[in-house]
Amino acid sequence: MSVSEYYHEKRILITGGLGFLGSNLAHKLVSFGAKVTIIDNLDPLYGGNLYNIEQIRTRVKLALGDIQDESLLVPLLSDCDIVFHFAAQVSYIDSQNIPFRDLDLNARTTMSVLEIIRKHKLPVKVVFSSSRMVIGKSNDRIVDETVPTNPLSLYAIHKLTSEKYLQMYHADFGIPVIIFRITNPYGIRQQMKHNKYSLVGWFIRMAMENETITIFGDGRQLRDYIYVEDIIEAFLLSAANPDSNGQIINLGSGYSSEFGEMVNTIVEIVGSGQVKYVDWPANYERIETGNFQVDISKLKSLTGWSPSFTLEQGIRLTYEYYKSNLSYYI
Amino acid sequence: MSVSEYYHEKRILITGGLGFLGSNLAHKLVSFGAKVTIIDNLDPLYGGNLYNIEQIRTRVKLALGDIQDESLLVPLLSDCDIVFHFAAQVSYIDSQNIPFRDLDLNARTTMSVLEIIRKHKLPVKVVFSSSRMVIGKSNDRIVDETVPTNPLSLYAIHKLTSEKYLQMYHADFGIPVIIFRITNPYGIRQQMKHNKYSLVGWFIRMAMENETITIFGDGRQLRDYIYVEDIIEAFLLSAANPDSNGQIINLGSGYSSEFGEMVNTIVEIVGSGQVKYVDWPANYERIETGNFQVDISKLKSLTGWSPSFTLEQGIRLTYEYYKSNLSYYI
Repeated sequence: MSVSEYYHEKRILITGGLGFLGSNLAHKLVSFGAKVTIIDNLDPLYGGNLYNIEQIRTRVKLALGDIQDESLLVPLLSDCDIVFHFAAQVSYIDSQNIPFRDLDLNARTTMSVLEIIRKHKLPVKVVFSSSRMVIGKSNDRIVDETVPTNPLSLYAIHKLTSEKYLQMYHADFGIPVIIFRITNPYGIRQQMKHNKYSLVGWFIRMAMENETITIFGDGRQLRDYIYVEDIIEAFLLSAANPDSNGQIINLGSGYSSEFGEMVNTIVEIVGSGQVKYVDWPANYERIETGNFQVDISKLKSLTGWSPSFTLEQGIRLTYEYYKSNLSYYI
Repeated sequence: MSVSEYYHEKRILITGGLGFLGSNLAHKLVSFGAKVTIIDNLDPLYGGNLYNIEQIRTRVKLALGDIQDESLLVPLLSDCDIVFHFAAQVSYIDSQNIPFRDLDLNARTTMSVLEIIRKHKLPVKVVFSSSRMVIGKSNDRIVDETVPTNPLSLYAIHKLTSEKYLQMYHADFGIPVIIFRITNPYGIRQQMKHNKYSLVGWFIRMAMENETITIFGDGRQLRDYIYVEDIIEAFLLSAANPDSNGQIINLGSGYSSEFGEMVNTIVEIVGSGQVKYVDWPANYERIETGNFQVDISKLKSLTGWSPSFTLEQGIRLTYEYYKSNLSYYI
């Protein structure tokens, strides 16, 4: 069965479905004929954006509300085959200022989803977007799924807590779950309101506005940037494959670029903006994770997936999108 | 400076101070002339017990209340040098039935303590009682502080979350913290109301009541049982030593006994009770951690501590205590 056949008529719930990952996933699923329901609270701090689903608005069900409200969540989970649980507080920087809220949004809601599925014995698969941040400093290792976890922010601590919940509910109650540790995601439909989430998106905006982009240090630290369409493809292939159940899976391109190379590619493609190098500020150094190179062989061997977009191609597609739509994202 | 001199006149807050660890610690600190304040909510599910401090009642300050109430906690933390944060939901079995409450009691309260100290810039050291449970199955390794953590219950997940908070607040804000991963603690002043906490205490009660003690499997699984007086000694030596700040420290006897040997020692010392062997029930097997042997060399080299009580001596002291006091603990 092809992936598009697998998802045809499948009932899919996407929490945080008006955001970056959720809305791109919704577009793809709608094209496969899936029955997509989105729940999103449109919290102005995060990336939820009605414009993200404008072209598919009539082909998805939309619940505007907070998944902390169990009375909303129970009927939605009762009526789906797979839930992509993406609703989250998405900034590791903000997490330090709103510790209890981050706990609620990034850990407690995951427990809510799992508890509802357990209590009502719902046959629902849970796909969760975790982050490379759970690992902390890479110490220049190539990072696979077995390295020790040393989260350096509340955001990362709570993503790790959610991972542990998912693994425990899988082991104890047989709930199918998949945990993706996503590296540095970027692409279309991502908010560009501030620099606290994806620096790729933020720098594209700065270049488009002919601003100066500041690079800390020598800009040679390695990052694995992955274009959103590759991420969505990996989600869909994995969730269609029972061998992925219970697994933690790294999701990156498998190719690391220098930070400075990413910035220079943006400035070149956009055709405006400047670059300036400055020293690392003290408070960033502790949280800076060092070179990040990720081993994606588990994802590849589980699904046959491989990335389709180079960093240059991804930046070009992202820029093309924002050229026509920037005002909706800033 | 001797340990007793170090604690003389020190202002010490003990959350959960009417419980097993907290009250034994309070007794020792009072004997050193420390200024001890206890906060405890006497939740009937846990081990908080006014009888535990009867002999020192006039020499400690007692706040009866819930540490989830920040208005109670702020003045108490503002008026102490060291907080021993022991208030917790203490049963990994119960944690599965009260998931959100376990999250609140075992993770959120730790964040509260740290946030209050951070916000008010209080010069307070935090000592936390974590558990060997954060590690999960030992896979027959000797467990030191660097082994990967794979918690198998919500109790253990939330203890791990608290550990990560403490490490982060130490690294980011310089708050001195010490995290003890305690193995299997037992001893006087521990509640014996049910079998969900310490099996040593529970079995002593059963033997005293001439009941039959059931051993799952062949009873040869290894556990590191540590007597409470040795634990308190390790707490006090470590908290007096700045080199312990920021550290995770295993706290066990360093000697592993067979489960069956522990049971037989109890029956022998108490002089009543029977032993019966049965097969493991299915639901226990997943959570059974396998042989547990713990490396305590870090604690030893940091403090010079070594355990003073063998399992037999500890069981004897515990039994002697309950012989006169059983009715207060069941």
